[in-house]
Amino acid sequence: MPTKSAASSRDPGQSALLTDLYQLTMLKAYWEHGMHETAVFEFFVRRLPPNRSFLLAAGLAHALDYLERLRFEPEALAWLGGQSAFPPAFVDWLADLRFTGDVDAMPEGSVFFPDEPVLRVTAPLPQAQLVESRLISLLNFSSLIASRAVRFTLAAPKAQLVDFGLRRAHGSEAGLLAARAAFIAGFDGTATVLAGQRWGIPTFGTMAHSFIQSHDSEADAFVRFARAHPDNVVLLIDTYDTEAGAAKVVEIAPGLRAEGIEITAVRLDSGDLATHARRVRRILDEGGCPGVRIFASSSLDEYEVARLADAPIDGFGVGAALTVSSDAPTLDSVYKLQEYDGRPRRKRSEGKATWPGRKQVFRTCTDGRLASDVLGLEDEGLTGEALLEPVMRVGARLRPDPALEEIRDRVRSSLAILPDGLRALASARAPFRVEPSPGVRALSRQVDGKSAGCGVDSDFRTSGVTR
Amino acid sequence: MPTKSAASSRDPGQSALLTDLYQLTMLKAYWEHGMHETAVFEFFVRRLPPNRSFLLAAGLAHALDYLERLRFEPEALAWLGGQSAFPPAFVDWLADLRFTGDVDAMPEGSVFFPDEPVLRVTAPLPQAQLVESRLISLLNFSSLIASRAVRFTLAAPKAQLVDFGLRRAHGSEAGLLAARAAFIAGFDGTATVLAGQRWGIPTFGTMAHSFIQSHDSEADAFVRFARAHPDNVVLLIDTYDTEAGAAKVVEIAPGLRAEGIEITAVRLDSGDLATHARRVRRILDEGGCPGVRIFASSSLDEYEVARLADAPIDGFGVGAALTVSSDAPTLDSVYKLQEYDGRPRRKRSEGKATWPGRKQVFRTCTDGRLASDVLGLEDEGLTGEALLEPVMRVGARLRPDPALEEIRDRVRSSLAILPDGLRALASARAPFRVEPSPGVRALSRQVDGKSAGCGVDSDFRTSGVTR
Repeated sequence: MPTKSAASSRDPGQSALLTDLYQLTMLKAYWEHGMHETAVFEFFVRRLPPNRSFLLAAGLAHALDYLERLRFEPEALAWLGGQSAFPPAFVDWLADLRFTGDVDAMPEGSVFFPDEPVLRVTAPLPQAQLVESRLISLLNFSSLIASRAVRFTLAAPKAQLVDFGLRRAHGSEAGLLAARAAFIAGFDGTATVLAGQRWGIPTFGTMAHSFIQSHDSEADAFVRFARAHPDNVVLLIDTYDTEAGAAKVVEIAPGLRAEGIEITAVRLDSGDLATHARRVRRILDEGGCPGVRIFASSSLDEYEVARLADAPIDGFGVGAALTVSSDAPTLDSVYKLQEYDGRPRRKRSEGKATWPGRKQVFRTCTDGRLASDVLGLEDEGLTGEALLEPVMRVGARLRPDPALEEIRDRVRSSLAILPDGLRALASARAPFRVEPSPGVRALSRQVDGKSAGCGVDSDFRTSGVTR
Repeated sequence: MPTKSAASSRDPGQSALLTDLYQLTMLKAYWEHGMHETAVFEFFVRRLPPNRSFLLAAGLAHALDYLERLRFEPEALAWLGGQSAFPPAFVDWLADLRFTGDVDAMPEGSVFFPDEPVLRVTAPLPQAQLVESRLISLLNFSSLIASRAVRFTLAAPKAQLVDFGLRRAHGSEAGLLAARAAFIAGFDGTATVLAGQRWGIPTFGTMAHSFIQSHDSEADAFVRFARAHPDNVVLLIDTYDTEAGAAKVVEIAPGLRAEGIEITAVRLDSGDLATHARRVRRILDEGGCPGVRIFASSSLDEYEVARLADAPIDGFGVGAALTVSSDAPTLDSVYKLQEYDGRPRRKRSEGKATWPGRKQVFRTCTDGRLASDVLGLEDEGLTGEALLEPVMRVGARLRPDPALEEIRDRVRSSLAILPDGLRALASARAPFRVEPSPGVRALSRQVDGKSAGCGVDSDFRTSGVTR
């Protein structure tokens, strides 16, 4: 085995080789047999994770960017050419491969449910197939994080919420995309500087315990930090003793004020946060610092944040619970062939069957609240708002990515239509059910009846699709 | 807020801005006050996740690469210069900042336990501080995945194990690094092509259900695939009906054999895998295909793999359970200041206290089995194997990264010394305890006694450090 440098300056997310080998082995067979007809694939989630009653769509901007940029770089082609499974003519064909298909998708920030297509790709079969692994990865991760993040905004609608999870995120792209997904879902900002640089997301930051520890005196550390960042003085007060730290804040405040520096907030990062917050609030108030806010962090999840609603805490920093969606770190999402060469297709594997055809989600509201989502055929002519919109045609985006503020607005309006039962932190007692339309049901029966090479019509199991 | 393209061609993992804002705010204060003395930070895990009795160290190669390459690129400097918090002279200083420190670390593939430093940085304070976020992220993630992966090798020591988890991984870097961490831990390979190209890790791949569905006949799809990949024919047989699929394999096998093509294996991906495997094994054996192996996938974790030990399954593809470490998707790892300017430091926050000083782990075996790990001071002169080795001096690696095969050998020998109780899938009834040395205990008392600006010596809580 060759020993290479472990890292590379190339972004793995930009390599066409960031895919599963089976995409390439299938492509070779399609190429050999000239199977270039139009295929329709849909990305959807099969079931809700525990503790979720709805999901938020996110990641579309990155998915479209991936499709627009997709190509095999020279380094990748050279490597593939050295693999005996891939003959030169196939590698030459890969060199010219671009994504020239269409995409219809729910806008980022949409509320969606299992079985609903979030994104549909219509493209020549090899193109539509090749993009599976990376499309799933991008849509799955951002939707996962946005769907967790929004629960914190529901738990603490008035508190400031900041993503502190870069160090716990699974690698660089995860850390960066999690900051974006959280902001979309309603967080106020992130500690991740690169998310500020790339997307203008507000960045927040204070100090680590090491800053306090590297000074001989905690009070000296506070004063130095305040002078270095006079516009945003947030002091971490739990390195040695939280209440003693708060007392020092009160001691140094008048001197700093004389210099024109106001202390913005203190941060608590250990112990019983509610108790400490109450004590610290009293120390600050009695010490003439009623304007100093209290910010809390320390392995918080949305339940803990909800429990702290009565404590005098003005904001929360959230780590792993957000950036790895620790209670449900994956979505059961798939990208499945629904039609090839004009004929609808379906998979009937046990517990994993799919609805065939080009589908659309038709949403109806009553009195401003979500009444029904019907999973219908695109051309079935059903009433209701059609959630999938055209976003790419012949490989090109139809419009620039929406601004993040626009997506945040969409989240707010999406949440507003949710019934209260779905907005609660606990799983809804009556989960929201997506209704397959008569057209979808009829097409399923028709496909099963015609299915060649199988002969097991009676094997149509509904358990996997209706739940 | 500016609307930028969501993506960028730059690798986020190569940007110095992939860090927490507080690193930069602290750096500014250190810079203002000339705090450039030597700091010692150690990376360690505070406690084991559920279902773990030991951890495997991984990610060092990438951590060292990061330190060697660290610099603020012009784009980053320009952006920082536009932020009011960072004056031009500070940004100029950042432009020249490089990592010039020393690193001592456990080699990748080492077994380690909570409280044991896995990596120690000795460098001027601003450098040692700045690298915190990315070092934690790299070491935390690869160690997390290696520590989950090794459990599959313990559950099925004779089976072929392949990483199928790219699509579930949290982004591009996670997918790539997970493939490497799994291979280090003993997996046979990965489906992720880029991991093959970058590091020579063996890649595995077959076909998706869409390949079968895009053909009118399942048997035609099998034959086409076999002809396209005659050297590695693995056929997915559960798209419509698993046993019917196996029967088709038996039907086409003689024809393919006449063409010189042998079917390598079939893959099961749904239903009760043990039952299907037994039925399929019988169909294959009775149909003259005893050499066709059976490979299984479908949301497998190590417990399910262990339960399938008696089924005729020769290999497993593992997805989310591996690449997001789904049962425990994060490690409670930290990077803490232990010494600054020649004086030991410690944090005493409730439940989060640390042991001060430059430490080493001294491991002793008896009769080839792990007997004790003592957490001592580097210069305490204790007996036993010292686990931390010098790996970087003055910002340069002391040797090339070890080959992956060398790391795999280290994992095998590390596992060999583990007591049986720690190797079991269930958490050990008697967890392995790391012993702080007399020197470490004495230093802690000394630091607490001298601690300035706090005055709460009685607040020395041992609960956080001895557990």
